[in-house]
Amino acid sequence: MSKATKTLGRRLRLGVIGGGPDSFIGAIHRSAATMHEEFEVVAGVFSSNPERSVEAGKAMGIARPYADPYALFEGEAAQAEPIDALAIMTPNNSHYALACQALEAGLHVFCEKPLTMSEQEAVELVALVKRTGKRFCVAYGYSGYAMVRQARDMVASGDIGDITMVQSNYVQGHLAELTEAERNGNNWHMDPSIAGPSLILGDIATHSYHLTSYVVGMEASELAADVTSVVEGRAADDYCGILLRYPNKARGVFWVTQAAAGGVHGLSFTVYGTKGGLEWHQEQPNELIVRPIDKPAYILTKGGNGLSAAGRHGGHVAIGHPEGYREAFANLYLDFASNIIDDMTGTRPDPLTLWNPTVEDGANGMAFVYAAVRSRDNEGLWETLNTV
Amino acid sequence: MSKATKTLGRRLRLGVIGGGPDSFIGAIHRSAATMHEEFEVVAGVFSSNPERSVEAGKAMGIARPYADPYALFEGEAAQAEPIDALAIMTPNNSHYALACQALEAGLHVFCEKPLTMSEQEAVELVALVKRTGKRFCVAYGYSGYAMVRQARDMVASGDIGDITMVQSNYVQGHLAELTEAERNGNNWHMDPSIAGPSLILGDIATHSYHLTSYVVGMEASELAADVTSVVEGRAADDYCGILLRYPNKARGVFWVTQAAAGGVHGLSFTVYGTKGGLEWHQEQPNELIVRPIDKPAYILTKGGNGLSAAGRHGGHVAIGHPEGYREAFANLYLDFASNIIDDMTGTRPDPLTLWNPTVEDGANGMAFVYAAVRSRDNEGLWETLNTV
Amino acid sequence: MSKATKTLGRRLRLGVIGGGPDSFIGAIHRSAATMHEEFEVVAGVFSSNPERSVEAGKAMGIARPYADPYALFEGEAAQAEPIDALAIMTPNNSHYALACQALEAGLHVFCEKPLTMSEQEAVELVALVKRTGKRFCVAYGYSGYAMVRQARDMVASGDIGDITMVQSNYVQGHLAELTEAERNGNNWHMDPSIAGPSLILGDIATHSYHLTSYVVGMEASELAADVTSVVEGRAADDYCGILLRYPNKARGVFWVTQAAAGGVHGLSFTVYGTKGGLEWHQEQPNELIVRPIDKPAYILTKGGNGLSAAGRHGGHVAIGHPEGYREAFANLYLDFASNIIDDMTGTRPDPLTLWNPTVEDGANGMAFVYAAVRSRDNEGLWETLNTV
Amino acid sequence: MSKATKTLGRRLRLGVIGGGPDSFIGAIHRSAATMHEEFEVVAGVFSSNPERSVEAGKAMGIARPYADPYALFEGEAAQAEPIDALAIMTPNNSHYALACQALEAGLHVFCEKPLTMSEQEAVELVALVKRTGKRFCVAYGYSGYAMVRQARDMVASGDIGDITMVQSNYVQGHLAELTEAERNGNNWHMDPSIAGPSLILGDIATHSYHLTSYVVGMEASELAADVTSVVEGRAADDYCGILLRYPNKARGVFWVTQAAAGGVHGLSFTVYGTKGGLEWHQEQPNELIVRPIDKPAYILTKGGNGLSAAGRHGGHVAIGHPEGYREAFANLYLDFASNIIDDMTGTRPDPLTLWNPTVEDGANGMAFVYAAVRSRDNEGLWETLNTV
Repeated sequence: MSKATKTLGRRLRLGVIGGGPDSFIGAIHRSAATMHEEFEVVAGVFSSNPERSVEAGKAMGIARPYADPYALFEGEAAQAEPIDALAIMTPNNSHYALACQALEAGLHVFCEKPLTMSEQEAVELVALVKRTGKRFCVAYGYSGYAMVRQARDMVASGDIGDITMVQSNYVQGHLAELTEAERNGNNWHMDPSIAGPSLILGDIATHSYHLTSYVVGMEASELAADVTSVVEGRAADDYCGILLRYPNKARGVFWVTQAAAGGVHGLSFTVYGTKGGLEWHQEQPNELIVRPIDKPAYILTKGGNGLSAAGRHGGHVAIGHPEGYREAFANLYLDFASNIIDDMTGTRPDPLTLWNPTVEDGANGMAFVYAAVRSRDNEGLWETLNTV
Repeated sequence: MSKATKTLGRRLRLGVIGGGPDSFIGAIHRSAATMHEEFEVVAGVFSSNPERSVEAGKAMGIARPYADPYALFEGEAAQAEPIDALAIMTPNNSHYALACQALEAGLHVFCEKPLTMSEQEAVELVALVKRTGKRFCVAYGYSGYAMVRQARDMVASGDIGDITMVQSNYVQGHLAELTEAERNGNNWHMDPSIAGPSLILGDIATHSYHLTSYVVGMEASELAADVTSVVEGRAADDYCGILLRYPNKARGVFWVTQAAAGGVHGLSFTVYGTKGGLEWHQEQPNELIVRPIDKPAYILTKGGNGLSAAGRHGGHVAIGHPEGYREAFANLYLDFASNIIDDMTGTRPDPLTLWNPTVEDGANGMAFVYAAVRSRDNEGLWETLNTV
Repeated sequence: MSKATKTLGRRLRLGVIGGGPDSFIGAIHRSAATMHEEFEVVAGVFSSNPERSVEAGKAMGIARPYADPYALFEGEAAQAEPIDALAIMTPNNSHYALACQALEAGLHVFCEKPLTMSEQEAVELVALVKRTGKRFCVAYGYSGYAMVRQARDMVASGDIGDITMVQSNYVQGHLAELTEAERNGNNWHMDPSIAGPSLILGDIATHSYHLTSYVVGMEASELAADVTSVVEGRAADDYCGILLRYPNKARGVFWVTQAAAGGVHGLSFTVYGTKGGLEWHQEQPNELIVRPIDKPAYILTKGGNGLSAAGRHGGHVAIGHPEGYREAFANLYLDFASNIIDDMTGTRPDPLTLWNPTVEDGANGMAFVYAAVRSRDNEGLWETLNTV
Repeated sequence: MSKATKTLGRRLRLGVIGGGPDSFIGAIHRSAATMHEEFEVVAGVFSSNPERSVEAGKAMGIARPYADPYALFEGEAAQAEPIDALAIMTPNNSHYALACQALEAGLHVFCEKPLTMSEQEAVELVALVKRTGKRFCVAYGYSGYAMVRQARDMVASGDIGDITMVQSNYVQGHLAELTEAERNGNNWHMDPSIAGPSLILGDIATHSYHLTSYVVGMEASELAADVTSVVEGRAADDYCGILLRYPNKARGVFWVTQAAAGGVHGLSFTVYGTKGGLEWHQEQPNELIVRPIDKPAYILTKGGNGLSAAGRHGGHVAIGHPEGYREAFANLYLDFASNIIDDMTGTRPDPLTLWNPTVEDGANGMAFVYAAVRSRDNEGLWETLNTV
């Protein structure tokens, strides 16, 4: 039984901006938010075209479809039972403004990454979240996997000692050739004015950065980046090789691309400390490989033996039945809901629910992106990350 | 956008019997049915205790919770907007009666396995489904995986030639020791009067049988079985080794147990034909290994290159993002919904939606179970399967 | 430095019968015997054609090539520095006679499997080995892998408790179609008068049986077998499904075939006990998967952490550098040499060197083959294994 | 039958310098050289201590053990049947001088890496090999694996298009803590005057560089390197992260370390081109994963379907039987022998035998090492590789 239903006697009410009928990420957000019966989606904006937005909302059975964000904020303010939270899944350059508006309107916010279009905006958003006291979750969906949380917990508990090395690959293949949309200039992900200064950094390298920082529990201090395109005729970056240094002298290596012909998804991380290592592959997400310095390697499995509370935390299918990306994403919404409910009822939150990616994580993602952009534009020199 | 919303202007209305607040399978059914926004759960019975049933339903936000199945059938009959379909997830010995009642009440039925408590009941249920013309889906959830459907399609298309060998393991570990519930006699799965004549056969060997029959597109003709318990002090069967013969002279081997100490789930199949082989592991469900006789082995991946329409059919997360058991289960509900909608609108169904496990599949599962029981009770002799 | 050189001041002298210039197994035997500088090959018979035998031996640089086995036994008896041991790798129906002759001639014997053409011969050979007191190693090469020995040791040490289940696959593909040699009747492996009563049982099922018996440290008591051909037009057996029972009530399942179209080698075993399980795949031989009942699964690696003396025993390449079939085979020769040297010098052998497959293992392989043949010929009834 | 025996009527005669009785690499060289019956080891120097050298050689059954290299060169010059070739496996700082002397003495040379102690020496050695016309093989053992050669052939044949990205990990764990030898200053691998300017670069990063260059068929043009130690209290480098650029604009990323606590060997490469990708892991050396841009990923297997002549070239165990490091190494000796025999007999070599790593490959390894050292010493700036 859901915590919302049990505690409040009703599900939480969610509004969404973005994610029309044919959007991949829209369907993921809605099914993730409702999977554990914590939220119902009651309001939304589903297109930048006002008519199409209302039409799509109606067709999808959304109770209160709106023509545009302005109408949504105004309309919900006037409702007797308005939305409790807003999920933002629009193109990158609108995240900041919408998030600010939602926070000012007293809403909790679940926002897609990258968080903003500049480091300055990110810092301001951090401050605004602090000021308004609202819950803010950035949609770094991979951090909802049980085995990622287990990894973070093992690092925090000292199971692998002091971190010495951090590595991540994110080797996608869907941009191995120029796309139709790209030739026609119709891919907003490749338009810097909408997507930000670097396709590869904002779209997916930021996931590698967040995922590894999330697991090792620290931010990098500096990096050197080779950021470019390896596909003939492409203006946008589709490749980066990045070397990182951490405050404790640990080192890092990232290889991130969307141009690996024949590659699929390819997100993984490996971290080593003085006492052992951890390895995780998003395409086999229910396993975490652990390599202690003095024992055989072992494999932690979702729902299996030897997990900590963090590895068991979240909504899960019974042992042996695999979970996927949708369940990971749903875990973010589950904790987001839990935090909102606790705030409503004045309850002290279970600390594990606070592991959801925060606005600070979003801002540090921007710090990573902009440090890499500076290195790219500066002959690969080492640059400092302005993390918060 | 869901087909129901688009076509009917509303979601389909689902009632459920079984699956209380703490049930694993109940939550799976509800989230699977609603994942693609085809169904909403509006009515249900959630306990054999009438008061607890209503209370639980209310607490879960179900609009019309009922005290017992009788009340549900009666109550829904009186509704202006009654349920369209019923999902049954009660202990085994009630499946048959509830399914019959639902069909007679004009409802489409989604029913847990094993279908019935005897081969005779199964045959009668097949006839009843035919007579009523209602949709009937048996909850063989594994057949909803995209790669299982791809496998079935490849066999049907002759990609691996005539089937020569069929193998399945289902090697769980959760009954490797006597359980508390078992010592206390509180595990209905082990009570033959509720669960049927053999724990291992009815609970999970039936999955191996259905999965392989589904893939190879034929039923076995005879089998020899060694069915017993390998755990000291257990009355119920927890192990079976089964040899199978098929009408075309193909051979089969199953190893199924719940007593593999340290094992997790371990469901897999391998089939070979005159031109190649297929291998699939439920714990890595998004991959299908193909071994052509004259080419290198290759790996089909959910959403990847080289899939047939069957492998792409269903609701899916974008490429590289893994799907799990819940998505497989949701695919059964998706096709179930599609069939119901087509019936309502007089539309000819997409043939792929008819791949959902049918009442005949459920009956053949019973034929498998009872042939193995006869072999067990008859010194391991070869026995005929009374498939329909 | 080799034990022979160190102890005797010379390498041991090996004769071979069988394995001509183009033979796979001949080259394996010779390179395995010499790998660790324990043996040198000084005499041999390399063809059933006397002239070709001598010619081939000369061409291969063998000091004393002979025309036939008789000449070899006679010739070596007359030598000042005769061979110490004989390796036999001829077609199956000559193993017994050659082994007897070698033993009577005072030679230690390394003999290919299957050991004999009948259970009776096998029993007699066991007696002859006892009487002559010579070392006798059967070429069950897979038992030389470090991880197989580790598995055996873990079972013997009680690490996985009392054995409850035994499983092995051996799923080769090289006979998925009728071969040229087979059509022409030129494949001695398929001629019962040379190869024995069942291709699949004698050629490879016997490996599954020895491997699992070697690991679990006990012989099966009875079995039921479905032995046949799944390839149209083939007389010889190319498939078996076998159910086994062990004296302690453990159960077993084998699936063995050479007709898996697209399959390669596919030898593996899984064993479970009351406290955990072990899994090994010959194609990844340097890893042993261990599944304790109450801890995460772990992976033992050749040369890695957590191995017992048995897992470290043998000649090895440094950690991380994979070893293959040739190294496993060489380990048999290494222990065979060690035993011979100890006999020569009156030294008590390291117990681990006695883990080499013995003449009793060879005889038990024959017991397995003939029990399965009886079951095949008797409608799949359960049959007793006449193990020694 | 070996080519030497068949063609020359005798095995080739090999001398070795280095690799005493307890040396890992010495035993590998000797068993690799003799595995296919092409070489016999007849002369050698086995210790820097003259007495111990002769004693060890005698004990190992070597016909002509020498006190030191000088004695060997002199002694062999005086022999009627002198060595044909010399294998050098001494500490790094003696490779150059010994190789020069051997070449001047008319010997073919098989030499351990790193080739020399400076880029200049490497260039001179290249010239000397050209001048003397002798065969020279550098012991980059990984290039002897069948699947590595298959990968090289597929790139050369254009199967994956123009190379866009190159990646290699080499993540060992044996130096995760300060070693006893290191504390005592007894590890020559860590003494720059013996081992060269960087432990990690000379010892193993050079393998990643050679392996990837070997496969992609081109040398990198520039690199940026972060080279340091991640283990507290260690002077020698045990970590490097390296970004590479290739003449055709391809990019590369290496992560190489010996300080991964719990890591084992961890050598792998992944390369992508415009039409697909290749991936190989040394710990599963008999498989090559191929990812075409428009087809499912497939797995080439040693001895299996779909291999080119390059993938089948070399000495091999039959299909399905794994090969390891020793076989890869033996393949280098096999081609080395073939080249020598062809030179002796005036035969035109099979082009595939010329794929053995050459003196130029050794020199390019030095160019890689020294470019990375310059970048290390120069704040991570991009540096040019002075490849030959």
